[in-house]
Amino acid sequence: MEIKIALGQMKIVPGRPDLNFNIMKQMIQNAKSKNAHIIVFPEMAIPGYLLGDTWEQQSFLRDCEEYGRLIIEASEDIVILFGNVGIDWNKTGDDGRVRKYNAFFIAQNGRQLGDENFPYPFRIKTLLPNYREFDDERHFYSLSKLALELGQKPEDMLTPVNINLAGNNIGLGCILCEDGWSEDYNTKPVEAISAKGSVDLFVNISSSPFTLGKNNKRNRVFSKQARETEIPLVYVNNVGLQNNGKTVYGFDGSSTVYNKNGDVVFYSSPPFAQGLDIFTLDLSKGGSNLPKANVPDDSDISYIYQALNYGIQNFTQTLGINKVVIGISGGIDSAVSAALYARAIGPENLLLVNMPSIYNSQTTRNLAKQLAENLGCLYTVVPIQKSVEHTIKQVESTPVLNPSTGEQSYLKISPFITENIQARDRSARVLSALAAAFGGGFTCNANKAETTVGYSTLYGDLAGFLAALADLWKHQVYELARYINKEVYQREVIPEGILNIVPSAELSFDQSVDQGKGDPISYPYHDYLFRSFVQWWNRATPEDILIWYSEGVLEEKLGCRPGIIKELFPTPADFISDLERWWRLYNGMGLAKRIQAPPILAVSRRAFGFDHREAQNGVYYTKKYLETKETLLTPLSRGRFC
Amino acid sequence: MEIKIALGQMKIVPGRPDLNFNIMKQMIQNAKSKNAHIIVFPEMAIPGYLLGDTWEQQSFLRDCEEYGRLIIEASEDIVILFGNVGIDWNKTGDDGRVRKYNAFFIAQNGRQLGDENFPYPFRIKTLLPNYREFDDERHFYSLSKLALELGQKPEDMLTPVNINLAGNNIGLGCILCEDGWSEDYNTKPVEAISAKGSVDLFVNISSSPFTLGKNNKRNRVFSKQARETEIPLVYVNNVGLQNNGKTVYGFDGSSTVYNKNGDVVFYSSPPFAQGLDIFTLDLSKGGSNLPKANVPDDSDISYIYQALNYGIQNFTQTLGINKVVIGISGGIDSAVSAALYARAIGPENLLLVNMPSIYNSQTTRNLAKQLAENLGCLYTVVPIQKSVEHTIKQVESTPVLNPSTGEQSYLKISPFITENIQARDRSARVLSALAAAFGGGFTCNANKAETTVGYSTLYGDLAGFLAALADLWKHQVYELARYINKEVYQREVIPEGILNIVPSAELSFDQSVDQGKGDPISYPYHDYLFRSFVQWWNRATPEDILIWYSEGVLEEKLGCRPGIIKELFPTPADFISDLERWWRLYNGMGLAKRIQAPPILAVSRRAFGFDHREAQNGVYYTKKYLETKETLLTPLSRGRFC
Repeated sequence: MEIKIALGQMKIVPGRPDLNFNIMKQMIQNAKSKNAHIIVFPEMAIPGYLLGDTWEQQSFLRDCEEYGRLIIEASEDIVILFGNVGIDWNKTGDDGRVRKYNAFFIAQNGRQLGDENFPYPFRIKTLLPNYREFDDERHFYSLSKLALELGQKPEDMLTPVNINLAGNNIGLGCILCEDGWSEDYNTKPVEAISAKGSVDLFVNISSSPFTLGKNNKRNRVFSKQARETEIPLVYVNNVGLQNNGKTVYGFDGSSTVYNKNGDVVFYSSPPFAQGLDIFTLDLSKGGSNLPKANVPDDSDISYIYQALNYGIQNFTQTLGINKVVIGISGGIDSAVSAALYARAIGPENLLLVNMPSIYNSQTTRNLAKQLAENLGCLYTVVPIQKSVEHTIKQVESTPVLNPSTGEQSYLKISPFITENIQARDRSARVLSALAAAFGGGFTCNANKAETTVGYSTLYGDLAGFLAALADLWKHQVYELARYINKEVYQREVIPEGILNIVPSAELSFDQSVDQGKGDPISYPYHDYLFRSFVQWWNRATPEDILIWYSEGVLEEKLGCRPGIIKELFPTPADFISDLERWWRLYNGMGLAKRIQAPPILAVSRRAFGFDHREAQNGVYYTKKYLETKETLLTPLSRGRFC
Repeated sequence: MEIKIALGQMKIVPGRPDLNFNIMKQMIQNAKSKNAHIIVFPEMAIPGYLLGDTWEQQSFLRDCEEYGRLIIEASEDIVILFGNVGIDWNKTGDDGRVRKYNAFFIAQNGRQLGDENFPYPFRIKTLLPNYREFDDERHFYSLSKLALELGQKPEDMLTPVNINLAGNNIGLGCILCEDGWSEDYNTKPVEAISAKGSVDLFVNISSSPFTLGKNNKRNRVFSKQARETEIPLVYVNNVGLQNNGKTVYGFDGSSTVYNKNGDVVFYSSPPFAQGLDIFTLDLSKGGSNLPKANVPDDSDISYIYQALNYGIQNFTQTLGINKVVIGISGGIDSAVSAALYARAIGPENLLLVNMPSIYNSQTTRNLAKQLAENLGCLYTVVPIQKSVEHTIKQVESTPVLNPSTGEQSYLKISPFITENIQARDRSARVLSALAAAFGGGFTCNANKAETTVGYSTLYGDLAGFLAALADLWKHQVYELARYINKEVYQREVIPEGILNIVPSAELSFDQSVDQGKGDPISYPYHDYLFRSFVQWWNRATPEDILIWYSEGVLEEKLGCRPGIIKELFPTPADFISDLERWWRLYNGMGLAKRIQAPPILAVSRRAFGFDHREAQNGVYYTKKYLETKETLLTPLSRGRFC
C-alpha cells in the first residue's frame, strides 16, 4: 500500500516537556489535516536528550510520562511514533534509581502498541553510546541489560511492531539512533529485527548532533542497511540546540528516507530548520520507484557557517542574551566573531570595542574601526594603558609585611606578567563592565589551536559567555572569514588587511604586526599537530609523532605540506623542543585554562569539554618516546637529519 | 594455613605508570623481605583510575602493559595481585577502539594466573559504575558484555582463581571495587564466585575516592558479604589525589580485612597515608580467631579537615604551585581557607591580601589583619577604590558611536554593576597580578551554598586555581573553623569576631556587617534547601518542596529546625517567591558560573562538576508544582497558612 508518512522534524527544547508537547500537538494536527497515516517524531522528543543529571529528578520524569500520555491520546486516526523516556517505576537501574529506558513509543487510536513479544508497551534502545559527548549508559537501561535480566538474548527481543493501516498489516522496525550505528557492537538491531521477517519499514528516530561530515557517513551507513535488508528506512532527527554545560551542539535535522535499494529518496532541507514534511511511500515497491534526492556535502565550510550562525542565535536566546559586546583587536578571530554575531543577532545589538595599549599598532586599530564600520555595529574605543600602569605601580609600590621578621618587601611585575595584566584588564575590567552596562554578555573569540595549548589569558581573552570559534582550527577561521565576505555578506566586511597581517596578541613590542612578528604558533603546521593530539580517534602522542618524524612520514600522517617540517625545524633538537613545549602546554596550562573556559560551540568530531574529558594529571612521556628521543639526539643519528 | 598478606596501600599518581611501577617494585621488595606470601595492590595501580580520555592513547596503553609485565616478572617467591588495564589488541570496544578491561592480575613466579575457565590470563571487573564521578563504561568492557559476546552467562565466568602456596591450594575470589557493591545490579559477583565453592579468601582491589561517610557504608556492605559467604575479605584501596578536571578526589586508603564473621580485624590508619601493612590470616579459621580492630567514624568533621588538608597539599604539588595568594575579607570562608593553606603549604608560602573599598568596615579590615598575624603569613593591603572609580568613570565617559545615525551615547554603571566591578577588580586585577609576581596561584574561597546559586562574581571571587571549600555547606564551614581553632592549631587562629559577624560580601552600604546586614542567603535553612536540590540521591525539585511545605513536613524532610520556615516566610507567597528565586539561580546564573568555576575538592556524596553533570537548559516548573502553587496562592488556602 501507499502510506503517507509525516516527518516531524521538530525543534526540541531540552528540559521542556511542556513546550515540546505543544509543538508535537500542532504537528499532529497538521499531519492529520494532510491525511498522513503515520507521523514520526525524533528520539527523546518530549524531554530532550542532553539534560545532564536532570534525569534524577522524579518530578521531571513524571511530567515526561504525563505529556507522553497526552500524545498517545492524540493518536486517533493517525499512528504516532515518538521518542520519550520509558519508565518502570517498579524496577531500578544499576544506580539504584528508578529504571529509565531511552524508548520508542508507538501509538494508534489512543492506545500504545509494541507489547507483543515484549515486556513493555514501548520499545527500547539497544545500543547506548558512551563515547564523545554521549552519556546514555549513565541514565538509561539498555535492551542488552534487560535481556540479561530476563534470561534472554537481546536478539530474541528485537522484533518488529505490527500496526494495522486501513486493513493492511504493516511490520515496523523501530530503532533509536545508535541502534543504526552497530558496526562496533556485538548486537546488530537492524539485522536482528529484519531476521524475524515481515518488516515493511524501518524507522530510526534520532537525536543526533551535527558535526562536520556526520551526515555523509550516516548516509553511507544507513544506505547500506536499507540495501542489505531490502527494506526502506525513515530517519527522523530533531533540530534545536542542546548542551552539556561545557559543549554546545546544534542539531541539524536532515531527516532522510532511504528506499530499499539504499537510495536517498528524500532529504530534508535546509539543515537546522524545523519542518513537517509529508512523504508518500509505496511499501510494495519499497520506494524503489522514486527518484533520488539531492544530498548536500555536509563537510563544506557553508555547514560550519550555518552551524555557528544557528548556534549563536539559539544559545543567546536560551540564555536570554539580546545584546553582545565583542572586543575587536583588528585580528582575524575577533573579526570573524563580530561578523558572525552581527548576522546572528543583528548589528544594532552588537557593541564592538577596541581596547588599545601602547603595544597596539595603528594598523590593527584602523582595521578594527574599519570592521565596525563595515558591519554597522555600535563602536567604542576604551584604552587600557592607564589602568594597566596603575595596577603595575600599585603592586610594585605596596609593601608586603613579613610578620616573622617585621620586614617589608616589594613584589616585581615582569614583562610577561604585564602581558597578562593587559589581557585581564580588557576582559575582566572593561568588557565585563561594558557588557553589564550594555545589558548583555561578551564573547570569547579563542580558536581551537589557542584553546589546545592555552595561548590565552585566564580571566582575560579566555573569558566570555560563549566561545563560538573554539572548535575551529586557525586555518578554518581564515576559510570562514573568506566565506563570510564572499557568500554571506557578499562584500568585504572583514577587511583584507585583517586576513593579511600576521596573527599577533600585540601584548609587547616583540609582537609587532608591522614588523611581521606575531604568535609563537606556526599555522597551519601546529593546527595539524594539535589536531592529532585532540581529534584523532586514536589520539596521537609525542611517541607517535616522533617515530613518524624519524621515519620521514610525519607530514603525510598529519596531512600537511611536504617540506614544512624541515623549514620550521632545522634539527631534531629544534623539532623535539617544539613538540615537548606544546605537549606540555596541552596537558598543563592549556588544560587548567579549559577547565575554566566558557562553553564551546561544537562542530568538529571532537570538541573540547564534555566531548574531550580530561584530568589535570600533568605531562607523561612514554618509554618508547624517551628512547626515540635519545636516539635522535645522539650525534650519529643527528647526522642523518641535518 | 597461615598466610602473610601485604596490603600495598600505595599512593597512585594518575597517568604515571613509570612512577607507580617504581613504588610497587619497592613495596614488593619490602614484602618479600618480610616473607609475605601475597602482596595486594589497588585497582588500576599502574595507570591510575581517573584519567579522562587518556585511555584513548595507544602509546599510553602500551606503557601500562609493559610496566605490568615487569611487575609480573617480579613475582618470584611471592604472589602479586594488582590492578591494571587489561588489553585485547585483537578486539574492539563498543566505540571501535582497542578493547580495554579494568583488570585484576594475579602473578606468581613470573607467570600470570587466572586463565583457568577464563579467556584471559587476568580477571575483569563485572560491574562498571557509571553514576556520580565514575565513567567506567566509557572506557572499559565489562564482564557482562564479554559474557554476552561469548554466549555465556556472567555468573558462569565468575570463578575463583587457584593459587598454590607452599603446597597448599588456595582459592581466591578476585573482584574489583564496584563488584563488591552489587546491591542494585542483576549480577552479584561475590555470590557467583562463592557459589562455585572452594574460595578461601576474597580480595577486593579498589580505587575508591573518599567521600564523607563512605567507609561507614562500605564496612556495613563488606562485613555482610564476609558474614554471608563465611569467607574472609581483604580490601585494598589506594591513597593519592585524582581528578577529572572539574572535580578533585582524595583517596583515603583505609584498607581493611574482614574475617569470615564479618568483623573488621584490620583497618589501615591513618587515612590518606601510603603504607605497606603485613597481616597474618589463618585461612582454616577464616580469621575468626582475631580481635576486632578499631574503626573510626569517617563522617566526622576531622575527616573533612584531613581530606581538605591532603587535597590542598597534593593538588598544589600536582600543579607545581609552591606559593599561594589568598584574598582575605575578614569573613569566614577566606579565613578558613587561609588557615587550611597555612597548614598545608606553610605560612611562609602564603600571602594574604586585604582589598578594601569604601564599603569595607573597619571591623572586617581589623579581623583580616588579626587573622594574618595569628597565622604568621605574609600580609598586604591593596585598596581597590581608585581602580574601581577609574573603571566606572572610564565607561561612563567614553562615547559609544552609532554608525547608522552618527550619534554618540554613553553607558551607565548601576549600583549592582558596581558590586561586580569591585569583585572582579579584586580577583582578576589584584590577586592575579599579585599571584603572578609572588610566583604562585590564588584561591577561590566560595562555599557550596554560594556555588549552588551563583552568589559570587565570575572572574571575581569565583576565580582561582582551586575551590577548596566549594563542597562544604556554610554550616560546615563554621564547624570546620571551630575544629581548626580547637584541634588543629589549638588556639584561636581564626578570630572569634570572624565567627560572630554576619556573612556579608560588603559590596555596598546595604551589606554593612556593623548593622548586621549581609548576604541574602539564610543559613542554615538555605543550606538544607540547596542540599535537597543538589545532593539527594533522588533530587528534590520545587514540586517536592512545595508539596512538603503544604503538608507541613518540609522542616522534617530537609532536616532543619522546626519553626524556622514560618519565621523566615510569614506567607506562602513569601515562601514561593524565595523558592523560585533560588531554583532560578541554581539552574540559571549559578550553572553558567559553575561552567567557568575552578576545580573543586570533593568531600560530599555529590560535588559540583563531573559528579553533578548539568546542561544550561534554563528553569522548568512541573505541572504539579504550578498546580500546587496556584492552590496555595488562592485566598482560601492562603487563610490556612497565615
